[in-house]
Amino acid sequence: MTIVLGDNYYGKAETHVVRVTKRGATHDLKDLTVSVALGGDFADTHMTGDNSKVLPTDTQKNTVFAFAHDPIGEIEEYAMRLARHFVSEFSSVYRARVTIEEHGWTRVHDHAFVRSGAERRTAAVTCTDDGTWVVAGVADLVILKSTGSEFFGYIKDRFTTLPETHDRIMATSVQARWRYRDTQVDWAKSFAGVREILIDTFASKHSLSLQQTLYAMGQAALEAHPEVAEMRIEMPNMHHFVVDLSPFGIANENEVFYAADRPYGLIEGTITRDDAREAAIDW
Amino acid sequence: MTIVLGDNYYGKAETHVVRVTKRGATHDLKDLTVSVALGGDFADTHMTGDNSKVLPTDTQKNTVFAFAHDPIGEIEEYAMRLARHFVSEFSSVYRARVTIEEHGWTRVHDHAFVRSGAERRTAAVTCTDDGTWVVAGVADLVILKSTGSEFFGYIKDRFTTLPETHDRIMATSVQARWRYRDTQVDWAKSFAGVREILIDTFASKHSLSLQQTLYAMGQAALEAHPEVAEMRIEMPNMHHFVVDLSPFGIANENEVFYAADRPYGLIEGTITRDDAREAAIDW
Amino acid sequence: MTIVLGDNYYGKAETHVVRVTKRGATHDLKDLTVSVALGGDFADTHMTGDNSKVLPTDTQKNTVFAFAHDPIGEIEEYAMRLARHFVSEFSSVYRARVTIEEHGWTRVHDHAFVRSGAERRTAAVTCTDDGTWVVAGVADLVILKSTGSEFFGYIKDRFTTLPETHDRIMATSVQARWRYRDTQVDWAKSFAGVREILIDTFASKHSLSLQQTLYAMGQAALEAHPEVAEMRIEMPNMHHFVVDLSPFGIANENEVFYAADRPYGLIEGTITRDDAREAAIDW
Amino acid sequence: MTIVLGDNYYGKAETHVVRVTKRGATHDLKDLTVSVALGGDFADTHMTGDNSKVLPTDTQKNTVFAFAHDPIGEIEEYAMRLARHFVSEFSSVYRARVTIEEHGWTRVHDHAFVRSGAERRTAAVTCTDDGTWVVAGVADLVILKSTGSEFFGYIKDRFTTLPETHDRIMATSVQARWRYRDTQVDWAKSFAGVREILIDTFASKHSLSLQQTLYAMGQAALEAHPEVAEMRIEMPNMHHFVVDLSPFGIANENEVFYAADRPYGLIEGTITRDDAREAAIDW
Repeated sequence: MTIVLGDNYYGKAETHVVRVTKRGATHDLKDLTVSVALGGDFADTHMTGDNSKVLPTDTQKNTVFAFAHDPIGEIEEYAMRLARHFVSEFSSVYRARVTIEEHGWTRVHDHAFVRSGAERRTAAVTCTDDGTWVVAGVADLVILKSTGSEFFGYIKDRFTTLPETHDRIMATSVQARWRYRDTQVDWAKSFAGVREILIDTFASKHSLSLQQTLYAMGQAALEAHPEVAEMRIEMPNMHHFVVDLSPFGIANENEVFYAADRPYGLIEGTITRDDAREAAIDW
Repeated sequence: MTIVLGDNYYGKAETHVVRVTKRGATHDLKDLTVSVALGGDFADTHMTGDNSKVLPTDTQKNTVFAFAHDPIGEIEEYAMRLARHFVSEFSSVYRARVTIEEHGWTRVHDHAFVRSGAERRTAAVTCTDDGTWVVAGVADLVILKSTGSEFFGYIKDRFTTLPETHDRIMATSVQARWRYRDTQVDWAKSFAGVREILIDTFASKHSLSLQQTLYAMGQAALEAHPEVAEMRIEMPNMHHFVVDLSPFGIANENEVFYAADRPYGLIEGTITRDDAREAAIDW
Repeated sequence: MTIVLGDNYYGKAETHVVRVTKRGATHDLKDLTVSVALGGDFADTHMTGDNSKVLPTDTQKNTVFAFAHDPIGEIEEYAMRLARHFVSEFSSVYRARVTIEEHGWTRVHDHAFVRSGAERRTAAVTCTDDGTWVVAGVADLVILKSTGSEFFGYIKDRFTTLPETHDRIMATSVQARWRYRDTQVDWAKSFAGVREILIDTFASKHSLSLQQTLYAMGQAALEAHPEVAEMRIEMPNMHHFVVDLSPFGIANENEVFYAADRPYGLIEGTITRDDAREAAIDW
Repeated sequence: MTIVLGDNYYGKAETHVVRVTKRGATHDLKDLTVSVALGGDFADTHMTGDNSKVLPTDTQKNTVFAFAHDPIGEIEEYAMRLARHFVSEFSSVYRARVTIEEHGWTRVHDHAFVRSGAERRTAAVTCTDDGTWVVAGVADLVILKSTGSEFFGYIKDRFTTLPETHDRIMATSVQARWRYRDTQVDWAKSFAGVREILIDTFASKHSLSLQQTLYAMGQAALEAHPEVAEMRIEMPNMHHFVVDLSPFGIANENEVFYAADRPYGLIEGTITRDDAREAAIDW
C-alpha cells in the first residue's frame, strides 16, 4: 500500500477588482470578484516542497489586475483571456479555471452608481490545451410569488404533520448555472435572455411543486437558447408560513406570513438535452 | 455601597413578517423585520424573578403578527400602532420602542417580485404616555462615484505614508437616520425625498473629504425637509485602491482598482438645526 | 434657522493586527482588531473640505501597526497608549477612543495555535486632555444551561399563547461591557475574574427569568470586583423550543429541542453601584 | 432534440436539533445541524407536479426530530439510521444522503456549557439499497504557525512581485473530509485520531509550501488510520503580511503582521491509497 496524491488544484480566490472605463465625464463600472484554480504537474510541491513548477497565487492576483487594464468585455471573455494565459504560458499548468462574480450597479449620475443588490452574474471558464468550456450563471436571485403555488398529493407516513395547501407563497433564491455548447456565443445577450426566462417562468407558471417550477424554468431556458447545453439549478424553498391568528379571533387568509430562516427545503435539478454533448470538465 | 439596577429594556427582536395585500390578481407585498424593546417597571423580574409585570416577548411577537393583519400603511404608522399598544395596555410599560426594517421588492408580475437588494428603509418609533418620537432612515445604501473626489492638505506626521490625491473613487454604505420634528408627516413622501437628496448630493457634489460629502448630504436633506429636525449619518470609507501596475509596464490612470474589505475609514456625523427642539428619547 | 454640525467622529475601523513575540522557539500570539474614533476641531473638513486639521485614517492605521511593535501588554494598555498618542500629538483631536477586540488562540505547539472560537475579549479606551476612561468586556460568549430555568407568572392578554414552563433550556450569547472606576487596575486579572463570575453565575443560579439571571451575573461581578463601577449586559434569548413529538407517539421530556434563529428575545440591563462615580464619556 | 431531466435531489436542509441526555443532574448535549438530500424516482413532480412519490421536506424534518429521541450516538450512526430509513421506507427513494454538522460545547457545570468555537465535526452518510458510504470531516479548524514556514523557488514571470521568504506565518482554516473503507469503524476514536494528526502535522512539519503541508497532513492521517480510504482537504492560505515599518524607522523581524481577508490562496488536494477501493457515491 502506498499513499498517493489525487486530484489537486490551487489558486488565488476572491480578488476583488473594480474597473472604471471613461468616456469623457461618463464612466462605466465593472465590479468583479475573480477566483483562479490551476491544475497540473504539481506533485513536487506536495511531495517535497519543490516549488519550481508553481506559479504563486500572488502572481495570479497580479495577473488578474494587469489583465483588467485591457477592456474587460463580458466576464466570460475576461475569464477566457485569463484562463488561456495560465494554460499557455506555463507548461506545468494543464487546466485553468477562472470563476468570476459580477456585482451589479445602477447608474444614478454620469459617474455615480448605487449597488443593485445581492444578485450576481457568474461565469466559470475552464481551459486546457485541448479546449475551452464556459459556464454562465446567476447567483442569489431572490424571487417570490404570493399566489399561484400549491402543494398536495404527497406521501403521508407516521411522521407527516404538514397540511396540504392549494395556495401558498413560494419564494426562493435561484442559483442557476448553465454550460454552453461551445464558445461561439453572444454572452451578454444569452445571459440576459436566460435570466429573463427564469424570472418569467417562475412568475407565470402555476406551480404544484418547487420541483415542477425548477424544471419548467430550465426547460424554457433551454428551449429558447440552443446555445445552452445543460443547466443546473439549486433553489432553496424559503418557507413563508401562514401565521395562525385564530387564537386572536382573526381569520388569516394568506395575508400574514412568518418568513423562516432555517430549516429550508433545498431542490437541486439538472435539465439537459438528449442530444447535448457529454459534459467534459465544464462544471 | 449597594448594587442597583440601572437602565434596562427587553423585547422580541427580528420578527420577520411578510404581509400580502390582494387587489384581485394584483398583490402588494410588505417585507418587514420588526424589533420591540420595552422599558418600565421591571425591577421585580431582575431582583426576584417575579414576572407579574412582564409581557413575554412571545406575546410581543404574536402582537406584531396580529397587528399586521390590519392594513400596514407606512412602517412609521405600523410601528406607532404597535408602540402605543404596548404603552397604553400595560401599566408596567413606560416606554416602547418599535424598530422596523423594510426590505424592498421589485414587481415583475401581478403577484411576483424580485428582491431589490441589501438596502433597507428603517423606522424607529418610541412611545411613552407623554409622547411619540419618530426616527426614519436608510441602511446599507451602497453608493460609489468614480471621480469627483479628492483628498489632500491633511496633517503629515512621522507615520504618514498616504500620498495626496486629486482624483479617487469614493464609495460608501450610507447608514442615515433622521428624527422628525413631530408626527405630522407624510412618511412615504418624506422618506423618498430624503433618500433622493442623499443620493443626488453624494453623486453631484465635488468632494474634498468624505466628511464634506456627509455634511453636504445632511445639509441638503434638512434644507429641503423642514419636517426633519436632525440627521445622523455613518459612512464607511470603502477604500478602492489604485493598483500599481507599473512593475508590469502599465500606466494605471484610475482605471483598475482593488476594493478592500478591512480596515476601512468610518465617518460619523450629526447635522441639525440651531432651532430644532432638543432630542428627547428619539434615538 | 441655520443648519449646524453636531457630534462627529471619524477614524480607521477594524485594523487586523497580529503580533508575534518570540522567546526562542516558543512564540506568543496577540490577534487584535483595532478601531480608532477621533473627535475634535473638525468643522472645517465638514464645511469646506479643508483637511489641515485632519489626521488621515490611513495614518491612524500606520500608527496602530507601529505601536504594535512595542510590547503590546494587555489590550487596555495598548489602547491607552494609542488613544493618548492621538490626543497629545494633535491639537485638533480633543477625544480619542480606541476599541480593540482580542481573538483567542489555544497553543498546540511551541509556535502553533488553534483559534479558540467566536468569543472575544474587548476593550474601549477613551482619552481627552482631562482623563482616561476604560471599558472592558466580553463579546459573543455563548452559554447554555439545559435545566434550572423556569418562566411563569407573567402577564396574560388576548395575544398570549405561550405556556408557562418550570423547566427549559436557557441559552444566550453574552455581550457584557464594564467601565472601571479608574485606571489603577490589574487588567488581565480583572478580566479573567469577571468572565469567570459571569459564567459561574449563569450556570449555577436557578433562573426564573433571563432578566433575573442577567442581573445576578452583573451583581456578582460588581460585588467581587470593586474596581468595576458599572456593567452593561445584552443577552439574546436564543430560544430552544421543545419539539412536539406527540403526533408520533413519543413523549418528549425536554430531550429534543429545535434551536431557532429568529426572532429572539433581547434583554438589556445596566447594573451599577449607588456610590459609583457618574459615567463621563466612558461608554 | 428533447429536453430531459438529469440528476436531481431534494430535501430539508439545516434542521438545527439539540438533544439533551440526562444522567441525574449531569446532562450531556448534542448540538447538530442536519441536512437531508434524497434522489430517486422523482420525474413526475418535475414534469407534471404529481407529488405522489414525494416525501415532503417537512416530514423529513419531523423524522430528524423524532429519530433524535432515540440515543443519538455518534453523528455517523445517527446519520446512518436516518438515511437507511428514507431508503428502506419509501420505494421512490433510491439514494439518501444525510449530512450533519456537530457544534462543540465545553462543560462548565453539571448542566451548563460554553460553545467551543466555529469548528465543527461533520459527517455525510449516503445510503442506497446496495450499500452505505460514510464520509467524516472537520470544518473551519483554524490553525496558525508563527514560524517554520518558507516559500521560495517558484516560477517568476513578468507579473511576479512577491519576494521569496524563509520565514513566514502560515495560517489556514482546515476543511477536511475523509471517506471510510467501510462502516466497521469506531467513529469517535477515528475522528479524534484523525483530527489530532492533522493538527500535529500542521504544527510540527517544517513547511516549504502550503501544498506540502496539506499533503503531509493527509498522508499522516492515512498512514495511522487504515480505516480511512481517501481524504480531501481544502485549505485557504489566510495571508498574514509582514507590515513594512521601515518608513517609521522600525525593523520588523516577523513580529507585526497584517491579517488580510481577501483575496486568499486556496489549496485543494486529495490524498488516497493506491489500493483503496474506487469511490462510489461516497462524496
